[in-house]
Amino acid sequence: MKKHRITFLPSEKIIYTTDDKDTLLDAAMRAGVYINASCGGNSSCGKCRIKIVEGSVDSSHHPRITRIDYDKGYRLACKTRPQGNVIVEVPLESQIDRSILKGKSRKPLILSASGLGQLVKEWKADPAVFKIYLELPEPSVDDNISDSGRLVRELRRVLKNDNFSADLRVLRKMSEIFREAAWKVTVTLIALNEGLQVLNFEPGNKAQQNYSIVIDIGTTTVCGQLLDLANCSKDICTLGESSDYNAQIRYGDDVISRIMYSRKKSGLARLREAVVSTINGIISDLIDESHVEKASISHLVFAGNTTMTHLFLGLDPKNIMLSPYTPVSNIYPPVTARDLGVNTDDYVNAQVFPCVSSYIGGDIVAGVIGSGMSHTDKITLFMDIGTNGEIVLGNRDWLICASCSAGPAFEGGGIQFGMRAEKGAIEQVRINPVNYEPMILTVGKEKPKGICGSGLIDSVAELLLSGILDQNGKFRRDLDTPRVREGQSGYEYVIANTADTQIQQDIVVTEVDLYNLIRAKAALYAGCKVLLDSVGLSFGNIEKVIIAGGFGHYIDLEKARIIGLLPELPLELFVFVGNGSLLGARLFSFSRGFMIEAENISKMMTNVELSSSQKFMDEFVAASFLPHTDGKAFPGVLKRLKNRSLSTVNYPQ
Amino acid sequence: MKKHRITFLPSEKIIYTTDDKDTLLDAAMRAGVYINASCGGNSSCGKCRIKIVEGSVDSSHHPRITRIDYDKGYRLACKTRPQGNVIVEVPLESQIDRSILKGKSRKPLILSASGLGQLVKEWKADPAVFKIYLELPEPSVDDNISDSGRLVRELRRVLKNDNFSADLRVLRKMSEIFREAAWKVTVTLIALNEGLQVLNFEPGNKAQQNYSIVIDIGTTTVCGQLLDLANCSKDICTLGESSDYNAQIRYGDDVISRIMYSRKKSGLARLREAVVSTINGIISDLIDESHVEKASISHLVFAGNTTMTHLFLGLDPKNIMLSPYTPVSNIYPPVTARDLGVNTDDYVNAQVFPCVSSYIGGDIVAGVIGSGMSHTDKITLFMDIGTNGEIVLGNRDWLICASCSAGPAFEGGGIQFGMRAEKGAIEQVRINPVNYEPMILTVGKEKPKGICGSGLIDSVAELLLSGILDQNGKFRRDLDTPRVREGQSGYEYVIANTADTQIQQDIVVTEVDLYNLIRAKAALYAGCKVLLDSVGLSFGNIEKVIIAGGFGHYIDLEKARIIGLLPELPLELFVFVGNGSLLGARLFSFSRGFMIEAENISKMMTNVELSSSQKFMDEFVAASFLPHTDGKAFPGVLKRLKNRSLSTVNYPQ
Repeated sequence: MKKHRITFLPSEKIIYTTDDKDTLLDAAMRAGVYINASCGGNSSCGKCRIKIVEGSVDSSHHPRITRIDYDKGYRLACKTRPQGNVIVEVPLESQIDRSILKGKSRKPLILSASGLGQLVKEWKADPAVFKIYLELPEPSVDDNISDSGRLVRELRRVLKNDNFSADLRVLRKMSEIFREAAWKVTVTLIALNEGLQVLNFEPGNKAQQNYSIVIDIGTTTVCGQLLDLANCSKDICTLGESSDYNAQIRYGDDVISRIMYSRKKSGLARLREAVVSTINGIISDLIDESHVEKASISHLVFAGNTTMTHLFLGLDPKNIMLSPYTPVSNIYPPVTARDLGVNTDDYVNAQVFPCVSSYIGGDIVAGVIGSGMSHTDKITLFMDIGTNGEIVLGNRDWLICASCSAGPAFEGGGIQFGMRAEKGAIEQVRINPVNYEPMILTVGKEKPKGICGSGLIDSVAELLLSGILDQNGKFRRDLDTPRVREGQSGYEYVIANTADTQIQQDIVVTEVDLYNLIRAKAALYAGCKVLLDSVGLSFGNIEKVIIAGGFGHYIDLEKARIIGLLPELPLELFVFVGNGSLLGARLFSFSRGFMIEAENISKMMTNVELSSSQKFMDEFVAASFLPHTDGKAFPGVLKRLKNRSLSTVNYPQ
Repeated sequence: MKKHRITFLPSEKIIYTTDDKDTLLDAAMRAGVYINASCGGNSSCGKCRIKIVEGSVDSSHHPRITRIDYDKGYRLACKTRPQGNVIVEVPLESQIDRSILKGKSRKPLILSASGLGQLVKEWKADPAVFKIYLELPEPSVDDNISDSGRLVRELRRVLKNDNFSADLRVLRKMSEIFREAAWKVTVTLIALNEGLQVLNFEPGNKAQQNYSIVIDIGTTTVCGQLLDLANCSKDICTLGESSDYNAQIRYGDDVISRIMYSRKKSGLARLREAVVSTINGIISDLIDESHVEKASISHLVFAGNTTMTHLFLGLDPKNIMLSPYTPVSNIYPPVTARDLGVNTDDYVNAQVFPCVSSYIGGDIVAGVIGSGMSHTDKITLFMDIGTNGEIVLGNRDWLICASCSAGPAFEGGGIQFGMRAEKGAIEQVRINPVNYEPMILTVGKEKPKGICGSGLIDSVAELLLSGILDQNGKFRRDLDTPRVREGQSGYEYVIANTADTQIQQDIVVTEVDLYNLIRAKAALYAGCKVLLDSVGLSFGNIEKVIIAGGFGHYIDLEKARIIGLLPELPLELFVFVGNGSLLGARLFSFSRGFMIEAENISKMMTNVELSSSQKFMDEFVAASFLPHTDGKAFPGVLKRLKNRSLSTVNYPQ
């Protein structure tokens, strides 16, 4: 077992290998150095490019690395094993820019508290975890019942409830606190189906110090909020907000790569540790920001997709990936922070949103609750657009749902220059229909590094409107512009020239990219169509469309309709809710009614398995066109395409 | 911090001191060397006599050690600090003979299974913890609900129940077991008030391997049984039985000394560890004896007095001892073996009998259940005779109870030559009324070392019947026998001469001993009287008397009535049940109905606090006579006393 020192630049992080089989990707993982690794380390994505600055390595040549780059020292980290001490440079495109999430530079992902009332009208502040201040009568010879009996007698009187429980740990500390506090104590309780459970005691009156933390565990991003449970009447008071990348990213970009990684030795434990460390970082930020004592956090609520939920709880996600796609469980028992390794007081109660199926998770159940869909009579289409597009159709009486494997195009996956919406990502595009020159805006207004999902939708819509692209997703070969050219993988459109970029390459949109994007949008649209058909409805019956998900928030609604990602419905029917999962988690923590509702909704939602549906395949093929083979469904778009030159405005020539 | 080597003889156990303040009693405690210590180490009992064989010690002179013994090297271990390496001899009277309990030489303490039906008529075998074998349908694309959903669906179908729960740990291992076992699994469940909780999974059909262990945690002795839960119809099948001294004895003989010790630094933790180590030893014996796999033990039931229960669960017992005598709790949540440190599979469910008050514990609640008292219409008096005499009066409709601080006389405490019923203890006595010579039988038929409780009752009854003692408990001063003489602490009767004993001393019964015994029996009798009066009944209304407790089992009923310990009621009303606590624990484990009943009974029992009752004091004074100042209550005894010489049979002169 040789030990080699690996130094990663530019972070200068140092780690030692422990095993001859250690690759540089393994070492980077352990060192906490982020390197893109979309495929979980199986060398198929080719994204984990690093440059050997010094030292000897064993690395076979890989088609993803050109001969020129190979000679410059570029390698795939997942295929490279150090033979001695090595200095490695992590290229710019492989570094995740975390500052963008930590800062406040972007639009907030979450609806404001006041906006919640507009979505969910019927709710009252009635937190499941609450505190009550009691002044207990002191024991005397005439009244010497046990301390727990004294407590229950008083709770029964004040709360008009007869069913109390407490665990051994609480009993162990109770008597001393009662006496130290001269029988004036604050009791923390949680309302469960079966009654009230005593969670904690504090001396004196602390009833006003009652806070919860709600966390949405996304595959890419983890978002949390710290809520004031004691001081809320109709509106939820948010004292802090923080988000960060899910540290599991180092083990793969999407749920499938994570599940693959979980099958390795200690893989599940490592993934669990990674997401718990992210969560603990967020909790620590929230506590700092809110100036709240850690001991006053008395409730934790988590929501995530089924895979994230399994990984967080330490449940083996293997069968989520394997046909017939069965999760371990969709309902999760309440646990303690200690059981989960979450850094609040050990015995804080943590609740995890129930899921529906392998690909409809607790984040969607939370979104349905948070968006008010389960409280409205209106027939509502709920779409969470990401790597997996999850869609829910229904209202307060019925709910039907499906997950469409849209592929990772919306998050930059499968796209040659695709990237997340980080600094340098092209996010807005206009194309001059006369000279076909693009005008681009990037996140952070930096020199471009790649294209994010919303930039890609913009690009495709503009390419279509400017006549560069036909409705099959193919570039016109007869245009007089160097922007359209034949590249290594077929025809492509140059959206940024080398000189303008940070990456010493032209940034292009290829026909392969277009193919992938069209598949992604077609899957979503086809999924909606299948759900509608299954209940005998059509798009025309939809009374409200809720777009959830961080990505959805940045979509240009018009552009999305032009490419046929969203149905052509009146703009006023669309509502963006941002992180619907977090919205639902907030409600869950604020009102015990939603805790029960969450489980009922998860059981009530009918899951339609699209992967094996011929109907879905047919609809998918029909939708694999811009905007759709059924032109009648997109009359407005077709009209704009007919009047192409009129649809764009004055560009300088 | 000097380190001295302490060698204890005869065991040759060696331990090193860690602190200058370490006494030899501290060292013995850590070494696991048993030395009598009735007073918890505060030097008041004077029982921890040891002999310094070699080495230098710092030990002040103590009135309990005579000058002669002091010169021989005798010291009180609790007042002696080593100054260097020391060799210490633990005298015979201080060594507890454990073999007597491990072996089968004595009569069994527990009623046979077949006897149970006579006591408790209405019960059926319906264990709260049970196993069920399921063949689950394999998942398919058409039926791909979650694994837990699949389990619950099948359980619901088979058990006709709709309320199931499972904790995270069970969910974590479920999926792998299901698949490894090809969906043929045995599920362990526990019936709780709120529904059924899944506790465990095993591959294949293990439904017949379902065992429980029930344990009575006595202050002195811990008794356990291993029960076969799967193969029982009407009778409980006991596969093993084991008992041992409670290792807490090293920290004090009675509950008060234990509570005193628990207030020392780490005292509570040490006491907990001590009893857990005893319990683990018993569990290990039971498993060995029964040839049952540890993994097949699926339920644990514990019953003990309130202090033992607190110490076992790690609840601070301090306020049990301090006025107004409030326990932390009388109801205990179910816990796991792991929480308790008990050496079965970690997540075996452990249930602890509820208590009633500081001095009416789970052992009494279990005794009431186990003796059938709570199922009969007959007005029943239940007496558990030990250091504390606990009495319960009532029937299926009402129960009233009290604890009488009888003092430790019945267990040899406060008696100059008192000892537990171990080898060498005088347990049966007859006295020749002509020459006043005694005839004695000892436990194990060894040379006498002291007198145990039943021997003392025998002695007093015989001394009274033979005219040596008057009804005030004073020896006649005018008898012509060397057996009655004036000793160091007043008049005494020599029951064994030095030459006949193992302890190089005369064994005597003193007037101080008699005083203590009379107080003890008077407290019990007065307690019964107060309970009867409080419900407007008299002894004549009692239809059944149940004598519980290991000690009760050895009492000579006639002798006990002669001294007024038991009321003069027809002999056929008396039933000895031995360890009633274990009987109740068995029922609890075998029939879920009793689990609910236990809590109801504990809440239904009205506790009468005697310590502050003037009525009790009056009755106590009235009963402090042999047999009682109210002769009308003991007509038969008075008649025998009048015909003293006739009451004894032919002794050789």
